[in-house]
Parts: sequence; C-alpha cells; structure tokens
Amino acid sequence: MPFGSCPLPILDHKEVLLGHGSGGVLTSQLIEGLFLPAFGNPILDRLDDQAVIDVEGARLAFTTDSYVVTPLFFPGGDIGSLAIHGTVNDLAMSGARPLYVSVGFILEEGLPIEDLHRIVLSMREAARASDVSVVTGDTKVVGKGSGDKIFINTSGIGVLPHGIQISAERARPGDAVLLSGSVGDHGMAIMTKREGLGLGGAIASDTAPLHGLVARMLEACPDLHVLRDPTRGGVAGVLCEIASRAGVGIEIDETAIPVREDVRGACEILGFDPLYVANEGKLVALVPAGSAEGVLIAMREHERGRSAVGIGGVTAEHPGVVVMRTAIGGRRVLERPYGELLPRIC
Amino acid sequence: MPFGSCPLPILDHKEVLLGHGSGGVLTSQLIEGLFLPAFGNPILDRLDDQAVIDVEGARLAFTTDSYVVTPLFFPGGDIGSLAIHGTVNDLAMSGARPLYVSVGFILEEGLPIEDLHRIVLSMREAARASDVSVVTGDTKVVGKGSGDKIFINTSGIGVLPHGIQISAERARPGDAVLLSGSVGDHGMAIMTKREGLGLGGAIASDTAPLHGLVARMLEACPDLHVLRDPTRGGVAGVLCEIASRAGVGIEIDETAIPVREDVRGACEILGFDPLYVANEGKLVALVPAGSAEGVLIAMREHERGRSAVGIGGVTAEHPGVVVMRTAIGGRRVLERPYGELLPRIC
Repeated sequence: MPFGSCPLPILDHKEVLLGHGSGGVLTSQLIEGLFLPAFGNPILDRLDDQAVIDVEGARLAFTTDSYVVTPLFFPGGDIGSLAIHGTVNDLAMSGARPLYVSVGFILEEGLPIEDLHRIVLSMREAARASDVSVVTGDTKVVGKGSGDKIFINTSGIGVLPHGIQISAERARPGDAVLLSGSVGDHGMAIMTKREGLGLGGAIASDTAPLHGLVARMLEACPDLHVLRDPTRGGVAGVLCEIASRAGVGIEIDETAIPVREDVRGACEILGFDPLYVANEGKLVALVPAGSAEGVLIAMREHERGRSAVGIGGVTAEHPGVVVMRTAIGGRRVLERPYGELLPRIC
Repeated sequence: MPFGSCPLPILDHKEVLLGHGSGGVLTSQLIEGLFLPAFGNPILDRLDDQAVIDVEGARLAFTTDSYVVTPLFFPGGDIGSLAIHGTVNDLAMSGARPLYVSVGFILEEGLPIEDLHRIVLSMREAARASDVSVVTGDTKVVGKGSGDKIFINTSGIGVLPHGIQISAERARPGDAVLLSGSVGDHGMAIMTKREGLGLGGAIASDTAPLHGLVARMLEACPDLHVLRDPTRGGVAGVLCEIASRAGVGIEIDETAIPVREDVRGACEILGFDPLYVANEGKLVALVPAGSAEGVLIAMREHERGRSAVGIGGVTAEHPGVVVMRTAIGGRRVLERPYGELLPRIC
C-alpha cells in the first residue's frame, strides 16, 4: 500500500448515491477504489463479511454493521432484532460461535422513548435467542432533521475453532451450492409494508439467527468452503461475488430455488426479481460435492434449514460468471446488481 | 434481570432530547432506566468505557463509539481522526493495547466523494499513529435529509495484560488525581469553528491517541486504579462519574488545572466552563498516592503528557461528591452536567 501520495480515486460518480450502499457494483467501487487503498491489509483484503484475527492464541471473528432500515417496525421483526441477527449471522458465516456484541445508537431528537424501549426489548430477545451478550454501548443524539429516528450499529466478536477455513476464496469447481430456504422474504416484507400492500396477509421478514444452523452444518462437514448470508443484493449478488472472488463459474437451476407464493406475487407487482431481494435468515453454502447430501440432511434437521435445497454447482468454465438455467430451459447470466434496488432495507 | 414484564421506564422526558447524548444525567437515565434493565450483565454493568472479556484464555477489551461531530473538518483534526482516536483511547483507558478497529459508515446521499476520501485518508493516518489495523467495515447510505453528511462508528479490540485492573470502581481514599494536560481544547476548537470566532488564531483540537502514554504510565505503576478520557462532560463530568461509581469524594484545586489562554478566552466569550468542555487527547488518572510522583514523571516524558499535573485527591468524606477549591479560596461542588452543553462535539 503506497503511503504519501494518494490521488482521488476515479469512481463513476463524484457524490455519494443511494447505490453506494447497495452491496452491488457501486459499493465495490467505493471499497476497492477508496477504502482498500487506504486501509488495506491482509485481513481486510479478504473482503469476507467478517475479519478473522488472532489474539493471544485465540482465533476470533470480528464484524460490524450499521442498520438504517425503514420502517423501524415491520412484520416479523424490527430494526432492533435485525441489528442483532445481522451481526450474529456475519460472525456465523465464518463458522464462529458468536459471543459478544456492542451496540451504538444514533438517535434523532424527538424519537419517542416508547419506540426506543420497544426496540431495545426486541434486541434483548434477539440477543437471548442468539446466545450473545451486549457488553458495551454508546448513544449519540442528533438534532431533528439530521438523522432519521434511529440508526443502530452492532459489532460482534465470536470465537472460531481452529481448522475451520470458510471464505469466498475457497469455492472450488465441483462444489455443490446449497440454499437454506425460500428467498426474498425480508426485502418483500419491508417493501410491501412501505407501499401499504396487503396482498391477503402481511409478508413476514425471515430475520433470524443462523449460528445454530451453521453449527449443525459444521458437525456434518467441518470442511465447508463458503458460507454467505444473502442480504443486500440477494442470492444473485452473493453468488456473483463468490464467482468473482474465487475465479470460478457457478451454475444454478431457477426451478430449484424456493420462493414463497406471496413473495413471488409481491415481486411481480413491484417489479423485483426475488433472486436479488434481501434475506435476513437464510444462507448460501458451497460444500465439497461428496459432503452435500450429508450437509443437506443436517440442515433440514434444524428449524432454520427445513427447506434447504441444492440449487446448483461450481464449474471451472466461465470463471467469474454465474449462469442460471431458467424454468423454460434457457440459460441466463446473472449480472451483479449495479446500484440500489431497495434502499434502506437493513 | 427480570424477563417477561418490562414496563416503560420512568424518565424525565417522553422523547429523545439532544441532552440524552450529552454524557450527563439524561444519558445516565437512558442507560440506567432503559439499557441496563434490558441488556444488563456483569460485564456491561461495570459501565466503564469498554468491556473487558475473556475469550479462550485471552483477556480482551472491546468498545464502540459513533461519531456525529459537526463540522466534519476542524483545526487539529476531523471526524475521521476523531473516530480512530476516540476508540483507541477507550481501549487504552482499560490499560489494553489497541489492536483492531472496525469502521461503519452511514453516508448521506450527496456527500462529495472528495470529502469521504479526505476523511478516509485521515483515518488511515490516525490508525497508523495508533498502531491499529482497520480489519472490517460496512457502508450504508441514506437519502438526502435523513442523515447529516457522514456518521462513523468505530469499534475496537485490544489485548489486556493479566493483572491490570483499571475501573472507576477502584477509586480509593488517598488516591492522587492526575491530569495529562490542558483542558477544553477539543470542545472550544469545534465551537469557535462553528461560531466563526477567530480569536487571533484558530484553537486546535487536542485529538490524539493515548495508548502510548498509558503504556508508559503502566510501566511506572501497574496498579493504576482509574483511567478516563474526559470527552463529553469534560473533566468535571468524568470526576463526578468516578465519585458516584466508587462512592468516594474527590477534591481538586482549580488553580492546578491547566487551561490554554485562547481556550479560556473562548470559554468566557461563549459562556462555558472549561472543566465541562470535551477533550479528545487527555486523560484523568487516579493512582495510589505513593505512586503519584513516579507516574507524573513518566507522563511528562511522553509527548502526550508533557504538561501532566496533580490536580487533587480522593477522600472518604462527602462520598459521591466532587469539591473544587476555587482560585479565590472558596469551595464549590461540581455538579454533574444534566443535559447538553455542546451538541455533536464528537
């Protein structure tokens, strides 16, 4: 990393756009054009959803996420439960056992204490269900109009068993691609709530902790190659990122991907592809082909993986590219999302 | 901690006020009335500026802070350097050696990439000077008017030598109270910049990492009782908190407390008491009386402690109360700040 001279990076835009927070191409431009040249080090450069660090012989996972979802309360959860689950899941995706969480609130002047109380109680329940303790925190307040009710940052620490090596870079031709359940629930819960769409019953977010599911999967196969929770950018975004990072091709079957009927309906009405819609209680796993059946059985024994399915595999062909065999028998390249599909979804 | 029923806490106000972020009485109401009943556990209940946790035999310090300072750029620093120094200092105040930092950005749509770049470069330099690596991060973007240019959360992990026990609870009658340098610089740098006051040369923030100074102090006296960086609420706020937490009295001499001439002048013009104004590169230490001289000598050998002085001592009298002997020979009780003196100072 060159110090000293550091020219302004060449990005597509000179101002921050909503799309820079999408988890898509614009986010990558910020990360690769601006953050990595400044902060780059071998730990950060892995670009997984968590850092794996060694401290005094302990192997730790460390992660951070800010939550700006709107509305604050939605079917299936709220910004509080989301803030705990999201960070717990980022830890779990490394194979770590989540232990400790920090909470940083940025409150807008005028937020009803009652809303804050409800959010905090939801965080408490989510922390309990996730087997983590909130051990440190911070509160800032900004004036009316300088924030939007409440933003929450959670950072988390987990402990990682020696020998576990889960990273996007480990995707290998021959790996099976597994998915723990239906896609698009969280994003469509937020969007239908925002749009006031009833659709014969509210769509509920799938927000949930995944550390228990991952623990079961690791028992079945300690050599899991890749785990990702498909949040911003959805399953398509995560698969494109893995293909690009590992320099492999990925092929999936559209018909194998579970989508709830109400989610599919909402996607059609609002013009979204469920493969690109955020999830908050699902994971994608790449595992050695020989272990796939055993891992799937283990997943289905866990409440968060009842509907787990194999959706495709990794190939040495078309490196960096994800191809989907469509329901009508065609082949479609899944593009990485460029900008923002669903602002402030998490 | 009772689960199940959890009535809305009785606070002075039903809505969040700027004062809830002050670090004063209103902040305590939020913490003690709302956060602790929900999250309380023996680690959080210590209410120090960092959690001390044991992970696989390693003793770690873990802390989080969000930064919402305005303006973003000010004499002596910016929101980026502040975000690194603040978290490094929260770790250092436990005696820990800071190691790893996470960065979470909440960007407002429209922020010039050039400003973000400048802030990120400043964070890089601050991280380098603080001997920490940025190992994980997150970026969210909110629409125009839903944020204020940029908010930054940093969380940090440090390693704590076994045997070091630094906590507000350890203040004991007989302890000497030491201060590492002049007070009020940071707060007055922000305020004079905001107000456009020139005052014959800009007042510079004292923002700086303190881990090196703390390491020197620990060499001189491994049994430091209390360390605090007097940020929000200033030296008075920190001393009041220590007195209350440890159930001891504290007496200090007004004439012993260094205040730069330009800071004193700005405080007079703007109506602030420098004892209550935020610092970002200073610390208060409570040490056994017999070690005070040795610690002071060690502090003065370090660039961040050149002007270190003894400002008073701990007494068994008037527990919970801080008394200042004034310049004109009177005695004044230092009250804990109630609400907000200086909004968005950090």
